Amino acid sequence: MAKTTTHIALVCPGGPITQDLAKKTGEIAAARYGDSVRLHFHSQCFLRAGHFAGTDAARSAAFLDVANDPQFDAVWFARGGYGAGRLDENIFTQLADAARNKTYLGYSDAGVLLARLYKERIGSPVHGPMPTDLTRDGGDEAVARAIDYLVQQNVDALEPAAKSGKKTAAFNITILSHLVGTQWMPDLAGHILMLEDVGEYLYRIDRAMFTIIADHGIKKAAGIMLGRVADVPENDRPFGQTEEEITQYWCAKAGVPYLGRADIGHDAANKIVPFGGARIS
Amino acid sequence: MAKTTTHIALVCPGGPITQDLAKKTGEIAAARYGDSVRLHFHSQCFLRAGHFAGTDAARSAAFLDVANDPQFDAVWFARGGYGAGRLDENIFTQLADAARNKTYLGYSDAGVLLARLYKERIGSPVHGPMPTDLTRDGGDEAVARAIDYLVQQNVDALEPAAKSGKKTAAFNITILSHLVGTQWMPDLAGHILMLEDVGEYLYRIDRAMFTIIADHGIKKAAGIMLGRVADVPENDRPFGQTEEEITQYWCAKAGVPYLGRADIGHDAANKIVPFGGARIS
Repeated sequence: MAKTTTHIALVCPGGPITQDLAKKTGEIAAARYGDSVRLHFHSQCFLRAGHFAGTDAARSAAFLDVANDPQFDAVWFARGGYGAGRLDENIFTQLADAARNKTYLGYSDAGVLLARLYKERIGSPVHGPMPTDLTRDGGDEAVARAIDYLVQQNVDALEPAAKSGKKTAAFNITILSHLVGTQWMPDLAGHILMLEDVGEYLYRIDRAMFTIIADHGIKKAAGIMLGRVADVPENDRPFGQTEEEITQYWCAKAGVPYLGRADIGHDAANKIVPFGGARIS
Repeated sequence: MAKTTTHIALVCPGGPITQDLAKKTGEIAAARYGDSVRLHFHSQCFLRAGHFAGTDAARSAAFLDVANDPQFDAVWFARGGYGAGRLDENIFTQLADAARNKTYLGYSDAGVLLARLYKERIGSPVHGPMPTDLTRDGGDEAVARAIDYLVQQNVDALEPAAKSGKKTAAFNITILSHLVGTQWMPDLAGHILMLEDVGEYLYRIDRAMFTIIADHGIKKAAGIMLGRVADVPENDRPFGQTEEEITQYWCAKAGVPYLGRADIGHDAANKIVPFGGARIS
């Protein structure tokens, strides 16, 4: 990279993080890149307002602060949880040129913002690990992968199918089902769409696929790949299909190609998926 | 009514019921109306295929059987659960004239079918109790109310706001959020939309409202009324708003009038809400 130092700003569009988590994230970055990377945690990350990291207004303002600040190369969402969809709609009309040159990295609930940014063609939205992954087993590895990608656009960090340079996108299944039919939903026609989830009953995965596969763009997707569907609670009776059979069922019903498993999920192995495809140099 | 006997057919588009539940439902009907009401439980109600009351094909065929049979005055969904959205799309092109003169009664997951029937202008879809409510406290009362409505179109069974004859509709919040953006979603412009839910975290209610309020028809609804949101699990931190404040928040954000509480819910007091409004005689 031409610049000597990569500046990464962090905000929380959903739930808050702790100062301790910020410190640990900074230590991983420093250990890998020393002074050539700097993490800037916005003070909003540590606010608390009920379920959220500050009020909707505070979270909206913090996002605008970092997106519009030309000193930052990337905006890294520090945590998902829930809340990105409550940001003020008008922030998307207030994003300046500086916001258009940035990478935006996160997943899970932060996928709501990635979706909208992608729809509005603002910057480079990317599905990948967040600092809050440090609370998982092997989370250091996930966070290191995200930093490697932000600093070096490291190809090794990419999900294998994303290395092709083909149009890609990745979402949490539950989150994506809530975007369908809203003004936040991007057109995913022609994309390889990767999906993952955690902590949902299989009937809920199936129900979310009912909605996802109804989307006009997704009906014209290049195909769907299934990431990990983890920590599925046991129901009062077995569902009768695995998560892969569920995905194949809905793909077949809609005539969308099922392309196999993707290396993404709510876990340490979660790989990077740039929206629209990786720029392979 | 002109006919001496009301014939009610029962099917299960989602989960199965037991023979015992069918028997108890029949006893309540007989105690109230003797020979002037007859319940016809389709054998499909008792099938089991994984999560469902038989395969998608079996459930689709059973629904067509009873909808297209001119001897039946009404189709009563015996249970929700999950599965109505997996019925074959082509059933809606195979519904005959006999299907157009019927009342279709149910709620929860069965709301998916009510939605599609309403969208296709087939028969009279009605939101109200089902035989499976007998497993709840006071369920006899709910089931008796449903039978009273099916036999007599009893006005006392109606939700108070539905007694006005105004255009109404009612849905489970989670189910409706999954219909938005799909070919199952009816146009609810001009309607009083009543919403209820059970067993969901408040952040999930909030997330579902994000999707619901984005729907083009609902943005033009006459207003939203909130039924009961029951059995909300405790989260790791308080959400910070009640279910009513959540509803008011999203209504205000979208400019949809909030019209107060509705007398519906996953409980014995669940009142009847005819889609499109009650025909008050």
